[in-house]
Amino acid sequence: MLNFNFQLPTRILFGRDRISELGKEVRKYGNRVLLVYGGGSIKKTGLYDRVIESLNSNGISYVELSGVQPNPRITSVREGVKLCRDNQVELVLAVGGGSVIDCAKIIAAGVNYEGDPWDFFIHNARITGALPIGTVLTLAATGSEMNANAVISNEDTGQKLDISSRHLYPRFSILDPTLTFTVPPLQTAAGTADIMSHVFEQYFSPTPGGFIVDRMAEAMLKTCIHYAPIAIAEPNDYEARANLMWTGTVALNGLLSTGRETDWGVHEIEHVISALYDVTHGVGLAILTPHWMRHILSARTAPKLADYARRVWDIVGDDDMVVASLGIEKTAAFFRSLGLAANLREVGVEESRLEEMADQVTANRQPLGAFGQLNRSDVLAILRAAY
Amino acid sequence: MLNFNFQLPTRILFGRDRISELGKEVRKYGNRVLLVYGGGSIKKTGLYDRVIESLNSNGISYVELSGVQPNPRITSVREGVKLCRDNQVELVLAVGGGSVIDCAKIIAAGVNYEGDPWDFFIHNARITGALPIGTVLTLAATGSEMNANAVISNEDTGQKLDISSRHLYPRFSILDPTLTFTVPPLQTAAGTADIMSHVFEQYFSPTPGGFIVDRMAEAMLKTCIHYAPIAIAEPNDYEARANLMWTGTVALNGLLSTGRETDWGVHEIEHVISALYDVTHGVGLAILTPHWMRHILSARTAPKLADYARRVWDIVGDDDMVVASLGIEKTAAFFRSLGLAANLREVGVEESRLEEMADQVTANRQPLGAFGQLNRSDVLAILRAAY
Repeated sequence: MLNFNFQLPTRILFGRDRISELGKEVRKYGNRVLLVYGGGSIKKTGLYDRVIESLNSNGISYVELSGVQPNPRITSVREGVKLCRDNQVELVLAVGGGSVIDCAKIIAAGVNYEGDPWDFFIHNARITGALPIGTVLTLAATGSEMNANAVISNEDTGQKLDISSRHLYPRFSILDPTLTFTVPPLQTAAGTADIMSHVFEQYFSPTPGGFIVDRMAEAMLKTCIHYAPIAIAEPNDYEARANLMWTGTVALNGLLSTGRETDWGVHEIEHVISALYDVTHGVGLAILTPHWMRHILSARTAPKLADYARRVWDIVGDDDMVVASLGIEKTAAFFRSLGLAANLREVGVEESRLEEMADQVTANRQPLGAFGQLNRSDVLAILRAAY
Repeated sequence: MLNFNFQLPTRILFGRDRISELGKEVRKYGNRVLLVYGGGSIKKTGLYDRVIESLNSNGISYVELSGVQPNPRITSVREGVKLCRDNQVELVLAVGGGSVIDCAKIIAAGVNYEGDPWDFFIHNARITGALPIGTVLTLAATGSEMNANAVISNEDTGQKLDISSRHLYPRFSILDPTLTFTVPPLQTAAGTADIMSHVFEQYFSPTPGGFIVDRMAEAMLKTCIHYAPIAIAEPNDYEARANLMWTGTVALNGLLSTGRETDWGVHEIEHVISALYDVTHGVGLAILTPHWMRHILSARTAPKLADYARRVWDIVGDDDMVVASLGIEKTAAFFRSLGLAANLREVGVEESRLEEMADQVTANRQPLGAFGQLNRSDVLAILRAAY
């Protein structure tokens, strides 16, 4: 295990009807809110009305930034920053999934920075503070509700970049599993793939010795494998939605990266794809992950991949290469069983652009990853296999 | 899953040589410290000198409260409160295991309370604030380094009582596994039994549906079972010490009680024993736990106890009662294999006082526990079986 720091300042309010406590939580930080949300779904489900009611009954005024898209854009961030400044906003409240939360985080960080918030992503500026952030989560996926990360796309440059800063931890996050009852099957599947990918990126580590962290990672993978099919078949199953929601949060709140180097190679490849094509992040990850596993499988990586196959998929056998391969096929079959696309062609990616993507993924750094070590040729091979 | 709140404000600094950052962390909160520690072991190991050096080089003055005993006493707390007041202390720094940390917590809470700090435990007063608390952990066991709990004994009344308040979270805790290299085999075993008992008290819950929490609990149990024998055989094995230390922390930082009712029946029985006899807490828990499991085994509890046996001990079989029984015997055998006492007689408990203990355990509440439901006669039966 490597040395590490760990702290989780975000206050989680988990369970049914916690939304009624929203106004009270917000009031700890101020009386003027920027309400950030996506398309109209929160209006259709009635969540919007419940949020407004809780704000109103606590004397909190609000301005709105709606229409934040999946793979949220820097233009939305700029718009939100302006709204905050024009209205002396004291807290940025995200109601939605990871995209909405990420957008809210960078708005909060941008308010007190004079330049353009894209500067944070291209290392022209550091985040040195942020308005308080609160969230109401509507999708089990990104873990953004309890971490310090954000991913934003720039439509002008075709880039999708991530950032991390301790100032980006939400002060509170409301996690009501019933709010995810209306998440459609494909989004439920994509969210699950996202959660599993977060676990994989930390579980497949070159650092030896993290037994406790590996076992906790397997706990999270087993939970996803157990409950995703249930949530898809029975959207109103509370235990399924609750387990997926809490797993999504703990899978990326820092616990699984304690004491280890992490990989994130698949995420880096996927970010380039979804910046160019607006592919749903989890769908892209589900397509790429088994191909990444197959590509990096070697005598060096087989013991860990076999451990995964044995402990998560109950595969029996002595030959690590064989067992690992069976585990990889189980992984691919599981994603397909959830209705996720099996290759990049299905989601509209053009074969002619694979080389360009491989260039972009490895433009700043080679090799990519840590457990896997990917040069440009490896990335291209994975993209071709996934096509 | 039940509704819950979750937040972990304590900053963990984990790894080798983190002690060098002590002074810098302390200085965030003030320049005058009460240094709380136990017997002379931190002087023998050189830790005391490293602590003092880090305080001195950061311009931090200190007064000392030494001699805090296992099962820490309210008299030590009173003494510490007086030292804090007389010296305008700004942070209480615990260097030691759970006993020292618990003592420091209640000192910190007592400084701003006019009455006697024992009032907190007998519900004559509530904790409404505390001085900042910092810790340097020297034993993997209680989890007090990242939670809001404390247990204190009152030698006048023969009581050992616990308390929880959000004001008791340490601001920071330094977890250096190398500081536990000198922990003797029996203390390593007792610490492991303590950790495992914390997991059991939360894992054996009557609340259905907490799949993710159950799997994480099993991860922690497997880690203890894997590494305790290694740490006992090879005291300087860094990975063993690191895994046990981090497991001890996450086993009782609130994660395993998210969404569920917890039991704590064994702890309540053990507290009465160790208040009367000064038995090492973990030793008492190791003696009682298998007897508690045997006593509560029934058609109602067998499925969960069998799940434990299958998932943690790899026991195969269809009959839950049989599988559960085998798991219980494995648990008892494991504790014995670590060199822990097998019955209460071995640790000096008098048979003539078992009835009195059963009275005391159930004086304020029956039934005790949640997964197990213990009336006085159950407690007495467990004590007799454990004798």
